[in-house]
Amino acid sequence: MPPSEFRKILVAQGGGPTAVINQSLTGIALEARKAAHIGAVYGAFHGVRGIVNQDLTDLGKETEQDLVKVAETPSAALGSTRDKPDRKYCQEIFRVVQAHGIGAFFYIGGNDSADTVRIVSEAAQAANYPLRCIHVPKTIDNDLMVNDHTPGFPSAARFVTQAFMGANLDNLSLPGVYIGVVMGRHAGFLTAAAALAKAEPEDGPHLVYLPERPFHLESFFRDVKQTMERHGRCVVAVSEGIADGKGVPVATSLATHVEKDAHGNVELGGGALADYLGKAVKDTLGLKRVRGDTFGYLQRSFAGCVSDVDQREARAAGEKAVQFALAQDRDGSVSIHRQGSGAYSATYGFTALEELAGKTRHMPDAFISETANGVTQAFHDYLKPLLGSGLPEIRRLRRHPVAAIGEKAK
Amino acid sequence: MPPSEFRKILVAQGGGPTAVINQSLTGIALEARKAAHIGAVYGAFHGVRGIVNQDLTDLGKETEQDLVKVAETPSAALGSTRDKPDRKYCQEIFRVVQAHGIGAFFYIGGNDSADTVRIVSEAAQAANYPLRCIHVPKTIDNDLMVNDHTPGFPSAARFVTQAFMGANLDNLSLPGVYIGVVMGRHAGFLTAAAALAKAEPEDGPHLVYLPERPFHLESFFRDVKQTMERHGRCVVAVSEGIADGKGVPVATSLATHVEKDAHGNVELGGGALADYLGKAVKDTLGLKRVRGDTFGYLQRSFAGCVSDVDQREARAAGEKAVQFALAQDRDGSVSIHRQGSGAYSATYGFTALEELAGKTRHMPDAFISETANGVTQAFHDYLKPLLGSGLPEIRRLRRHPVAAIGEKAK
Repeated sequence: MPPSEFRKILVAQGGGPTAVINQSLTGIALEARKAAHIGAVYGAFHGVRGIVNQDLTDLGKETEQDLVKVAETPSAALGSTRDKPDRKYCQEIFRVVQAHGIGAFFYIGGNDSADTVRIVSEAAQAANYPLRCIHVPKTIDNDLMVNDHTPGFPSAARFVTQAFMGANLDNLSLPGVYIGVVMGRHAGFLTAAAALAKAEPEDGPHLVYLPERPFHLESFFRDVKQTMERHGRCVVAVSEGIADGKGVPVATSLATHVEKDAHGNVELGGGALADYLGKAVKDTLGLKRVRGDTFGYLQRSFAGCVSDVDQREARAAGEKAVQFALAQDRDGSVSIHRQGSGAYSATYGFTALEELAGKTRHMPDAFISETANGVTQAFHDYLKPLLGSGLPEIRRLRRHPVAAIGEKAK
Repeated sequence: MPPSEFRKILVAQGGGPTAVINQSLTGIALEARKAAHIGAVYGAFHGVRGIVNQDLTDLGKETEQDLVKVAETPSAALGSTRDKPDRKYCQEIFRVVQAHGIGAFFYIGGNDSADTVRIVSEAAQAANYPLRCIHVPKTIDNDLMVNDHTPGFPSAARFVTQAFMGANLDNLSLPGVYIGVVMGRHAGFLTAAAALAKAEPEDGPHLVYLPERPFHLESFFRDVKQTMERHGRCVVAVSEGIADGKGVPVATSLATHVEKDAHGNVELGGGALADYLGKAVKDTLGLKRVRGDTFGYLQRSFAGCVSDVDQREARAAGEKAVQFALAQDRDGSVSIHRQGSGAYSATYGFTALEELAGKTRHMPDAFISETANGVTQAFHDYLKPLLGSGLPEIRRLRRHPVAAIGEKAK
C-alpha cells in the first residue's frame, strides 16, 4: 500500500514494560499527526490481543500535552501481552484491521514482539493483505540483534548502576558480602551495568557474573574469598540467567517447579537465587554477614529513575517508525546505531524483521573481562553515554587520621 | 561539663545506613565550626568500635564544600556498627575519650543506637566522667518514640512510594498479582508508604499488611480474591515483619535457620516471604500470573531517591544536636515534632534518652484501616508532606473507545 493511502494506523505495545516505552508510543502518535493523509491513530489495548478483541482507543482524542505526560510515565500505557499469534490469530487480526481500514501496524516490543510482527507481516503477504508492519525496538535486556542498544535498556541500566552505587556504600558502611541479582535471561548487559557504579578502584561491584560465561560455584567461592582478603568486603552482581557449563541455569535447577511463559521462556523470578548463593557463600567460606537482594520488577518499573538519553531515543524511534512506514515500501524494524567514535550520538536504521525476530544478542567478548567475573573498559565506554545526565555524585570522607594516644585497643 | 570547656567533640554513626544520615554528620560538623570554643570535630569510624580502636579522623580537615557533598551521598560516611557497649567496652571508650580531651559525643542512629548512648551516658555519670552524650535520630523504620518522624524514613518512604507507583503501572500493563515485601520489623510505617503511590481509586497497592495487625493466610487469600474480582489484578504491600495471631513472624517460621544480630533482632531478609506468599496465592486461588519482589537493601541505600524535606531535617537535626549540647546541662536525644496543623513545618526538641532508647514506636491505630489491610486518610495526610518535592507525575491514557465493527472476537 503506498503511503498516500494510509488513512488509519494502529499502534500497540508488547512484552515487558520499560521506563520509556510510552515515549515511543507518543513519538508515533505525534509524528502521525504531522502526516496530512493519516486521518486516525488507533491504539490497541494489551497488544495483539486488543486487536482481535477490538479493544481499541482513538489516540487522536488525546491532547499533545497529555501524550507528552504519558510519554514520561513508565510502563506500557496501552497495556501489554505475551500473546504470540498463530495463523488463526492472524486471520482475526486481518478481519479487524480490514473492517477499520487500517493501513499500518506499529508494534513496540522486544525480540518476541519483533517475531510477532514478522508472523503478522508474513501472513499478510501470504494472504496478499495490504498491511504495513513496523516493529519499534524496546527491551531492558538490550538483546536485540543489529541495534547498538535498545530503548528501555539505558534507563534500566541506570537503575542498576544507582542501586549498586548505594549497595557499595551500604556494604562499605557495614562490611560483608552483598549479592545483587539482576534481570537478564541470556544477555548480561543489564547485570554488567552494575560495574558503572564504581567510582574508585576499591568500589564494588567487585565481581560481575554474566550468562555469557559458565558459572561455577567453586570459582565463585574463590573469587569472593580473594575479594574479602583484599577489601574486607565484597559486592557481587549476578545475572538471574547464570548457567553452569552445560547451559543449565542455576536458578532453574533451584526452582521447585519451573514456570514457562507463552514463548517457552522459563520464569527465573523470585528470590531463590540470591538466597541460595548467599547461603552457599556463608556456609562454605564461614562468613558472618552475607546479604542478597533480587532486584526483580523494580529495575524495569521503578517510577522516577530514567535516562534522558533513553527518553529522547525512544521518542525518536517512534517518530522514525512513522517516517519509515511512509517512505519505505517494505516491513521492518527501526534500529539504533552509534554514529562515529567521538562524542556520543545515535542514528536510526530500518532493518529486515528476520534479522532480529526471535533472536538474542549477547554481550560481545570485548565487553567481558578475561577472568569472566567482570567487564572491560570498552563496556564502560559503551554504556556511560547512555546513562544520561544527572547521575548521583558520590563523595566520601577523606581519612585524616588522629594519632592514637596510649595503647590501641587492638 | 560547661559548654565553655568543650574543646573537642566526637561524632559517630550507628545502625543501618540511610539516604540522609550524612546530612546529620555534616550538620554537626558545620555547626560545631561556628562555636568559637569547639576546637576540633573528630569522627569515629564504624561507630563506638572506632572509638575503642582509636580509629578516628579529623573532620576539621574536610572543606565545607566537601562536607556538603558528603551530606548528599547516601549511607554512613564514617561507617557503621551493630556493636552495643557493655561496662568493659564503656571503660575503653572513656579511656580514649579522656586521652583525647573529648567533651561531647554525638551518636547518629536509631533506637538501638539511642540505647548505646544511654549506656555510655549512664556509665559516664556513674564513673563521674565528664562526657556530654547526644543522640541524633535516624531510622528508615520511623519507630522512634516521641518523634513525629525520624530522618531517613521520608527518603526510604519515597523509594517505596515510587516503587509501588511503578509496580502498579507494571501490573496494570500485565495484570496479575504483585506482592512487594517492604522492610519494617515491628513498625509498619515504611510498608504503609506504599499507599501513597495511589493516584486513582483503582490504583494499587490494593492491600497493605502491617506488623501492627495479626496476619492470617485465610484473610489474605480472601482479600486477594475479592480484589481480583473487582479489578482483575491485585497489588499487595507486605511488611517483612507480619506475624500471626501469636506474634510469630511469618518470615521466621519460614526461615530454615534463624539468624540474630548483636541486639537479638531476628534477620528477616531474603526473598523467602515474597516467594512463599506468591506461591501460596497461586496454588490456593489457582491464579496464573503471580509475582513477588523483596525490596531488601535497595530501599535504604538506593542512590538518587531522596526527599528534600528529609535532607533538610536531617541536616537541621545535626545542627540542633550541637546547639543542645552547648545550651543544655544534660544528655538527651534530638527529637522532631510537627508544628501546628496547617502547612507542614518541623520543630526540634530535646528528649531524655530513656524515653526512646531501645523502645519501638508503632503505627497508631488512626493510621490503620478498620479492615486491617490498608491505611487511612490520616496516614496519607501525615506522610504526604514528608515525601518532598518532585515526585514522579503519573499520567494514563484516557479511553476513547473505537466502536467495534462486525462481531467482537469474544
